[in-house]
Amino acid sequence: MSGPTTPGYAFRTLATSGAARAGLLTTPHGEVETPTFMPVGTQGSVKTMSPDEVAATGARIVLGNTYHLWLRPGPDVVAELGGLHGFTKWPHAMLTDSGGFQAFSLADRRKTDEDGFVFRSHLDGSKKVLTPEVAMQVQGKIGADIAMQLDICPPGDASRADFEAACARTTRWARRCLAAKRADQAVFGIVQGGTDPALRKAHAEELAAMPFDGLALGGFSVGEPIQRMHEVLVEVAPTLDPERPRYLMGVGTPYDLVRAIGAGVDMFDCVLPTRNARNGQALTRTGKVVIKQARYRTDPSPLDPTCTCPTCAAGYSRAYLRHLFLAGEILVLRLFTAHNLHLYGTLVREAREAILAGRYEAFARDWLAGLEAGSQAAT
Amino acid sequence: MSGPTTPGYAFRTLATSGAARAGLLTTPHGEVETPTFMPVGTQGSVKTMSPDEVAATGARIVLGNTYHLWLRPGPDVVAELGGLHGFTKWPHAMLTDSGGFQAFSLADRRKTDEDGFVFRSHLDGSKKVLTPEVAMQVQGKIGADIAMQLDICPPGDASRADFEAACARTTRWARRCLAAKRADQAVFGIVQGGTDPALRKAHAEELAAMPFDGLALGGFSVGEPIQRMHEVLVEVAPTLDPERPRYLMGVGTPYDLVRAIGAGVDMFDCVLPTRNARNGQALTRTGKVVIKQARYRTDPSPLDPTCTCPTCAAGYSRAYLRHLFLAGEILVLRLFTAHNLHLYGTLVREAREAILAGRYEAFARDWLAGLEAGSQAAT
Repeated sequence: MSGPTTPGYAFRTLATSGAARAGLLTTPHGEVETPTFMPVGTQGSVKTMSPDEVAATGARIVLGNTYHLWLRPGPDVVAELGGLHGFTKWPHAMLTDSGGFQAFSLADRRKTDEDGFVFRSHLDGSKKVLTPEVAMQVQGKIGADIAMQLDICPPGDASRADFEAACARTTRWARRCLAAKRADQAVFGIVQGGTDPALRKAHAEELAAMPFDGLALGGFSVGEPIQRMHEVLVEVAPTLDPERPRYLMGVGTPYDLVRAIGAGVDMFDCVLPTRNARNGQALTRTGKVVIKQARYRTDPSPLDPTCTCPTCAAGYSRAYLRHLFLAGEILVLRLFTAHNLHLYGTLVREAREAILAGRYEAFARDWLAGLEAGSQAAT
Repeated sequence: MSGPTTPGYAFRTLATSGAARAGLLTTPHGEVETPTFMPVGTQGSVKTMSPDEVAATGARIVLGNTYHLWLRPGPDVVAELGGLHGFTKWPHAMLTDSGGFQAFSLADRRKTDEDGFVFRSHLDGSKKVLTPEVAMQVQGKIGADIAMQLDICPPGDASRADFEAACARTTRWARRCLAAKRADQAVFGIVQGGTDPALRKAHAEELAAMPFDGLALGGFSVGEPIQRMHEVLVEVAPTLDPERPRYLMGVGTPYDLVRAIGAGVDMFDCVLPTRNARNGQALTRTGKVVIKQARYRTDPSPLDPTCTCPTCAAGYSRAYLRHLFLAGEILVLRLFTAHNLHLYGTLVREAREAILAGRYEAFARDWLAGLEAGSQAAT
């Protein structure tokens, strides 16, 4: 067991409260206070937002999708323009996924074997081969601070044998990724194992024996019941090497973050706040505002009177936001995205303060009660 | 002849240079330095932009479209939310058109007679009647600082008889609009007459005899040769009452603005900078950048190295902007809109400085030479 091994990276835990941890992740592009939420910048842009606006939500690390950037504009173009930092002008830390998840879910005619994935681009049908070595090479050119190993992520209803095989192959690919990685780029290993705590723990031990800079929990939120995910997280997350950051991939709702932080998770990413924003859903501490609803037609109040995000602070009424949404105006997509990411930024910041103050349990109880009240009030 | 007559409004000319004028338009929502360009906020939003960003381009007055706001969300909703200022949070001056132009160009099954327009909404097919009185009533509820009279705007290739009839009816509607206007809302009259300078001048005299707060030139850029428009402007614009602001409706390119300011026009609006932005065209002093072109694939330079707009100042490369555009990312629509409106804001600011310094002719020569060089360089 050991912390990050790549030069320029460090992680330390400043405080714990139950299993929850407040930490500090050091990268070549600055420090990231944990727990942290990474907004998703699929194609080199957190959709609708400028880098300044993303940073204003509190985010100090964003996620880029290797699959998308690989296909367009291509890793060589990104590298020529100074890597993803120079290309997008995001000055803080960045992480890229391996491309495997999208190659599996988006691409046409995909095939998997021991060597990697073969698939057809969803853009132009061209044949692509994604091996652990290619995943490291492409991520190396894209040049985020943190790369992810290539892994096998079975669906939530896969068989026991499939989950075991996925763990075994993911471990073999882990070794190949570490052998192929850029010396100055951090890489996280990805723990699989579905909803079997024993399988998860065994796989986590295998990966923890390798010089990964962090450990991720993949294969959650892929169709299994969400309460089952949280039961497994409570058992598994606290057993992950405490010297390294713990990243729960692709999760989740504010509810999920509060629960998973309580289980000891440090990092999250999810398209939910940005995607729901573009669908006209504003998230608040007390539930959702679905702005197209007729009841907001002349509602003069902001999305959330207690919120300090730019959208609420500017005083835009629900009536105006509804009008913009129904009229198809781009401005509302920005205003909702800023609002939703601000909520996530606020959640992780307040969670961190609660952990530092040793009162995470009370924090979680309050947040969950607010979210619960909101979901009961919603019609 | 007299200046604005509505309380709270004033206009004065500070300097002239040839026929060009530098002035100051006072409204209840602040002063507007002229010449000025009004970004178009069709549906209560300058597309993609926040009010702060619009103001950062130098704009201190924007235009709203009565036709669109009338149909959705409706003038009563806008009024209930505090008028267009309270609804949109734009703190500076605003002008609305009468709705007549869109009722004519967008609506289904339109009919025109002496009373006004009858048309079907392009949104839901509902029957609408737009008379001079309704135009004033709807604009009164929307509550911009400046309303426009309802007018008749024939196409560029209409007959002499059509142009004469349009002037006559526009004059009759002018009286009805002034009789129906809100006492505290300024109204501009609209001069028609096609490309016949004599007809234009005669119509302008009729309208100038009425207590309008400003005089607009409508019916340009409706299909006539653009050089003919400028020939007519040179003859007509300087003859409009010098005590009142002169507004050239729906025009135009940077070239058009430089020429028309030279003819004595004070105010402009046009969708060109915002619409072209969303089509991936950046306007510069030396022509266009059509960002989808392959030659920008790895181009590290900004849209315009001499530009100080937020897009160019942030250092976004043409390569990145091209990637965003091809990927359909909303961010690039914002970045181009900010850039293009900044160019218009810069143009009118520099024009004003040149007029105040008594050197408009040299300013115009330089700008036109730059634009000309750019259009020759474009392939």
